[in-house]
Amino acid sequence: MLGNLIGPEIKELIEERNFAALREAFSDWAPADIGECLTEIPEDEQAIVFRLLPHAMATEVFEYLDTEAQEKILKAMGHIEAARILNDMSPDDRTALLEELPGAAVAQMLQLLSPEEKAVAQSLLNYPDGTVGRLMTPEFVTVRESWTIAQVLDHVREFGRDSETLNVIYVTDDHGRLIDDVRIREFLIRPTTTLVSEFRDHQFVALRATDQASAAYDLFKKYDRAILPVIDSEEKLLGMVTVDDILDIQEEVTTEEMQKMGGMEALDEPYTTIALPRMIKKRATWLIILFLSEMLTATAMQNYNEEIAKATVLAMFLPLIMSSGGNSGSQATTLIIRAMGVGEVRLRDWFRIMRKELLAGLSLGVILGLIGFFRISLWQFLHIFDYGQYHWVIALTVGVSLIGVVMWGSVTGAMLPFVLRRFGLDPAVSSAPFVATLVDVTGLLIYFNVARVILHGTLL
Amino acid sequence: MLGNLIGPEIKELIEERNFAALREAFSDWAPADIGECLTEIPEDEQAIVFRLLPHAMATEVFEYLDTEAQEKILKAMGHIEAARILNDMSPDDRTALLEELPGAAVAQMLQLLSPEEKAVAQSLLNYPDGTVGRLMTPEFVTVRESWTIAQVLDHVREFGRDSETLNVIYVTDDHGRLIDDVRIREFLIRPTTTLVSEFRDHQFVALRATDQASAAYDLFKKYDRAILPVIDSEEKLLGMVTVDDILDIQEEVTTEEMQKMGGMEALDEPYTTIALPRMIKKRATWLIILFLSEMLTATAMQNYNEEIAKATVLAMFLPLIMSSGGNSGSQATTLIIRAMGVGEVRLRDWFRIMRKELLAGLSLGVILGLIGFFRISLWQFLHIFDYGQYHWVIALTVGVSLIGVVMWGSVTGAMLPFVLRRFGLDPAVSSAPFVATLVDVTGLLIYFNVARVILHGTLL
Repeated sequence: MLGNLIGPEIKELIEERNFAALREAFSDWAPADIGECLTEIPEDEQAIVFRLLPHAMATEVFEYLDTEAQEKILKAMGHIEAARILNDMSPDDRTALLEELPGAAVAQMLQLLSPEEKAVAQSLLNYPDGTVGRLMTPEFVTVRESWTIAQVLDHVREFGRDSETLNVIYVTDDHGRLIDDVRIREFLIRPTTTLVSEFRDHQFVALRATDQASAAYDLFKKYDRAILPVIDSEEKLLGMVTVDDILDIQEEVTTEEMQKMGGMEALDEPYTTIALPRMIKKRATWLIILFLSEMLTATAMQNYNEEIAKATVLAMFLPLIMSSGGNSGSQATTLIIRAMGVGEVRLRDWFRIMRKELLAGLSLGVILGLIGFFRISLWQFLHIFDYGQYHWVIALTVGVSLIGVVMWGSVTGAMLPFVLRRFGLDPAVSSAPFVATLVDVTGLLIYFNVARVILHGTLL
Repeated sequence: MLGNLIGPEIKELIEERNFAALREAFSDWAPADIGECLTEIPEDEQAIVFRLLPHAMATEVFEYLDTEAQEKILKAMGHIEAARILNDMSPDDRTALLEELPGAAVAQMLQLLSPEEKAVAQSLLNYPDGTVGRLMTPEFVTVRESWTIAQVLDHVREFGRDSETLNVIYVTDDHGRLIDDVRIREFLIRPTTTLVSEFRDHQFVALRATDQASAAYDLFKKYDRAILPVIDSEEKLLGMVTVDDILDIQEEVTTEEMQKMGGMEALDEPYTTIALPRMIKKRATWLIILFLSEMLTATAMQNYNEEIAKATVLAMFLPLIMSSGGNSGSQATTLIIRAMGVGEVRLRDWFRIMRKELLAGLSLGVILGLIGFFRISLWQFLHIFDYGQYHWVIALTVGVSLIGVVMWGSVTGAMLPFVLRRFGLDPAVSSAPFVATLVDVTGLLIYFNVARVILHGTLL
């Protein structure tokens, strides 16, 4: 059984240049493990180790590497070796490599391909970036519904070798149009004289080559499939997509969503490799928007200049109150964005959610309000800080404001994703920072107005 | 081809109680689509529509429903119907239903099962919650390596009907120990006289029944599998897990991570159904921790009471400066948590990341600083607000503070996940609110100390 067996002994073998032992050691490893091992060793040694692998294994290992490593190893290889790998790669993995390379390198690599593989590679690269066509493998087995199972199995034995998977067999009509997908089990549990038309269920789900790759995930999840056929606008079968490619896509989608929720544009490339100016641009946009919005706090504060001058103690609790509103808003907005993302909450649920958040916000506000009230009273009582003779009204102002601000933060944070979605925007942009900014301005108004009422006749 | 065909006509048919037409309409729908349709109609009508489905289809549709809906439909059914569904369900889906039910309901449902199915259900429920054992289907086909392909195919034809999938055939030894997993394609592309031992590759990856389900996802992803075998501590084959179950688990893991990043404990149950007190508890803990930490701002502010009294204008820009630090920190921490989550950044990368964030923070700080400086000068120039004769030193204080705070926020936000991981904690708890709170306190110190230096001799 395999697992994470990458031990120090492999590194030693590489250092010692003990290639015979290394080749021996790798012989019973899985390609994914060798691939992982390769990424752990220095780049200049990767190509050396790579050459030790038997040819069939080499291509499989190569497919597990990331694009950057693949590019470097190809460059370090001779033309003949590189051509062999590129021709042997499964078309979807090859597309993933080629789409990341600069135009000149792509042209160079296409020259290394056999005429057939070149045609396949070019047709896949013709699909727009981010579509299902780019993920597709155009290697599949099709059968006709008039065939018997025996005929199907003979056909598969003859032509199945090149197909990435034989888990699903596709049934097409006279015009190459997909009319059914049948799981291999259906062929294996019946007498071989049975006709395909006798048991095919006339039900299939297919992707279009021009569908967005991110939308494909939903289809995979909804129908619990590990593989889906891809058709063109005339329903002709073009290829198939496997769930492992979709897992990668889903990881990217989650990354984008998280980055938006963190208050920035999605980077669209790995953090470790993105060029600094490009990353700064992606982050600056939202940071500036938030900054300009937050300037409203300065404008709002102008109206309370007089209050602050009379009672500087009010400024002291300003950060505490504003951040509490922001934090409760961040909680609420995260919960709702995610619940929307997994389809648990829909637009029409807004009223039920608002009621729930009103109650949650009230409870949380009361908890924080009480803590705030007792903190101020305690400091006064223990002579840690002297808030003056009106300390208890100050404590009351802080406590009451906290209730209002936390309630307001929870409701605003929960409702913002609904508003964004209602207007066709991505709810994920109602990020924690965005909600915090929104709640900061309004929290300020709540605080100073509570202060005006409660402190009237004493401090103000 | 199937898709989202749930139209208003179905609702009409239900309202009209036109069951014949409804049965007809459903006949060429996929189970997943009927399941989705069922969730859209009122609960009391779900069971009625459900009864219209042919028996084989009914179980499949049932498996696509969520636990709550399943429970309600079972209750609305007679014993005979419920027993049929429960016995026909695939064991992994049945476990998912049973583990959500109260003990009494589980006992009642186990009584409805045949002795064999009951034994299976009970053995699966014996695995701890959240382990691979709970996701497993103990229905598989095993063969011996001494068999020919013809023998394998005969065996599959006889015993394969109950297996959830035949995409992978398992090879066991004399003691029932798993010694290989072979994809069905390997049997189909070779002459039927070939021995299994001639082509099996001696390489397989297996889960243990006691493994954490969330860890299984990594194995699925690393080895690009759609199905993995499950073994016990003696390497005996117990069952298998399919990738669709893993997708569900991964969705839950992502939800937990996002909720932590939003500044709370993971809810561990859907937002829509969690009881209010339980949700408040999950949210209150972190909110209180953050509140208590944020109190440090009030303590810090005590030291600058004098400055605020002399220059109330300083208080005016406090929220702006603090929030800018929090926002840049939120961006940095989100990027790093996610990059760690997908394995792109490791502990040893901390120095490289710090350097990158120092530069990013400096650039972003300069951008915001310049905007802040010009905003104040512009307001003064346009007579929107009068900052007094020292307006330009105030503008300078705000600008310089912003550079410092944004830089500090970016570096703190980026380094916090490293610190947490270094001490064995989950980096995801370095949430946006947590970083904002941390940066608030320090941001305040930066701001007032910059003010002391720059405003010395003028306002202070």
